[in-house]
Amino acid sequence: MTILDGKATAAIIREELKEAVLKRKSDGKKIPHLAAVLVGNDGGSVSYVTAKVKACEEIGFESTLIRYDETVSEEILLQKVANLNQDNSIDGFIVQLPLPKHIDELKIIQAIDPKKDVDGFHPQNIGKMVLNLPGLLPATPAGIIELIRRNEIETEGKNCLIIGRSNIVGTPLSILLGRNGKPGNCTVTLAHSKTSNLKTLSLEADIIIAAIGKPNFIKANMVKDGAVVIDVGTTRVEDASRARGWRLVGDVKFDEVAPKCSYISPVPGGVGPMTIASLMINTLKAIENKSK
Amino acid sequence: MTILDGKATAAIIREELKEAVLKRKSDGKKIPHLAAVLVGNDGGSVSYVTAKVKACEEIGFESTLIRYDETVSEEILLQKVANLNQDNSIDGFIVQLPLPKHIDELKIIQAIDPKKDVDGFHPQNIGKMVLNLPGLLPATPAGIIELIRRNEIETEGKNCLIIGRSNIVGTPLSILLGRNGKPGNCTVTLAHSKTSNLKTLSLEADIIIAAIGKPNFIKANMVKDGAVVIDVGTTRVEDASRARGWRLVGDVKFDEVAPKCSYISPVPGGVGPMTIASLMINTLKAIENKSK
Repeated sequence: MTILDGKATAAIIREELKEAVLKRKSDGKKIPHLAAVLVGNDGGSVSYVTAKVKACEEIGFESTLIRYDETVSEEILLQKVANLNQDNSIDGFIVQLPLPKHIDELKIIQAIDPKKDVDGFHPQNIGKMVLNLPGLLPATPAGIIELIRRNEIETEGKNCLIIGRSNIVGTPLSILLGRNGKPGNCTVTLAHSKTSNLKTLSLEADIIIAAIGKPNFIKANMVKDGAVVIDVGTTRVEDASRARGWRLVGDVKFDEVAPKCSYISPVPGGVGPMTIASLMINTLKAIENKSK
Repeated sequence: MTILDGKATAAIIREELKEAVLKRKSDGKKIPHLAAVLVGNDGGSVSYVTAKVKACEEIGFESTLIRYDETVSEEILLQKVANLNQDNSIDGFIVQLPLPKHIDELKIIQAIDPKKDVDGFHPQNIGKMVLNLPGLLPATPAGIIELIRRNEIETEGKNCLIIGRSNIVGTPLSILLGRNGKPGNCTVTLAHSKTSNLKTLSLEADIIIAAIGKPNFIKANMVKDGAVVIDVGTTRVEDASRARGWRLVGDVKFDEVAPKCSYISPVPGGVGPMTIASLMINTLKAIENKSK
């Protein structure tokens, strides 16, 4: 059984990006600049955005963090998005999700210039992904693809079960793993809350990707021997033994599932760091596309 | 076993559209106007476009057919697309595919104004479909959804196997049938040329959608009793007994598969007429969206 070490893989990617920044510098080119908009004080969101800013610093990207109180109006947020679209010093930006309920997330996503949409959530980028046209890929699915690629996991002709059909993980990942590419060419089944025979499906799957946000949902009796299991879940579960009072728990009951797997990604340290690495890759891509 | 009679269902839709046109007329509103661009003389393309123009006439839509020789340059075609985008009298238009090899189809598709893209092939429309945002749906997948809806076939929680991952049928249909909607909520598996265990998958499927373009590919021994089978294939096969020298053959060996099915769509007279009906629905939607 091999651990899919996202933390180590992301560190390698950051080294490569650092090189690319140095090369741009020595060529007299602009340094990539990522902006992040954070609304409110949700613990998860704050720590994700903090990690993104930290990754920028490590790589040598410029970064800007823009914070709003959770009472900010949709109008003000849309105005900020318009400003960031216009601002030539900003190469890419994200608006950290989820947003407070009074703000229409899809409206915000659609307001972002697709060329600066480094989260890859804009309909134009999603559509280009489906049609296999160049664009900015959604960060988590692209991170998973990169984790598979760099670990040289064979995907062609494999039965892949993706559990969870969210707009930002399950659905786009089903497209990426099913299309003609490497990694790719999986026979993908996309399962969700209405799926009636999940256990049968999961026992037949060569590759299982769990993206439902239910701690320890995938048990050993749902996984066949030799399967590849990738865990996208990150739920904060109370844990009095930790100083901060919680720990991150994935969708997979790691201890019992891991011994059956050929490869498995842990939580934390699996998909999470790869998502951030993807965001950095997209930011570099965004600035490079500018000059095309 | 019930035949999914696309011809009859499409006729009902045309009647509804005819009513909608009369209503627009009596309200003093513009009559929908569909334009079709046809390059070359491919028999299939000519007959599809002819059927589309005929459907427009029957419904009371205005229609314009623009024909080019197969030697037309990409530049001239792009210029025509730009003109049609600008032309306020045209509410929607299509460029009939396939195009000659010297023309980049995806370039043409991306040049079409998404608001007039009644084939629903533009990345923006595909992306909106994935995100469940209002847009123009790809015509064939939308026609299949409509055929399922009007025949009140239960899809929730069903295992649906889609064979063929094309940009215009299999891939978008996998999204539409898998998303949370009615019809929808299927557990969709998307199979393709690299799938290693097609027969096993097809024998487990409650709903099989064949969209590969291989005549009579789906045999009785690949289908379980009571399955719903929808045939998207339309291959012209030589047939000396017909005056025109060919007949249309689907991907499903109808005679032996039909007795096992709860529902089956024939070729011709199944999905084909529904595709044309979808195009008309999209054209009406395009003109209605204008006033929003």
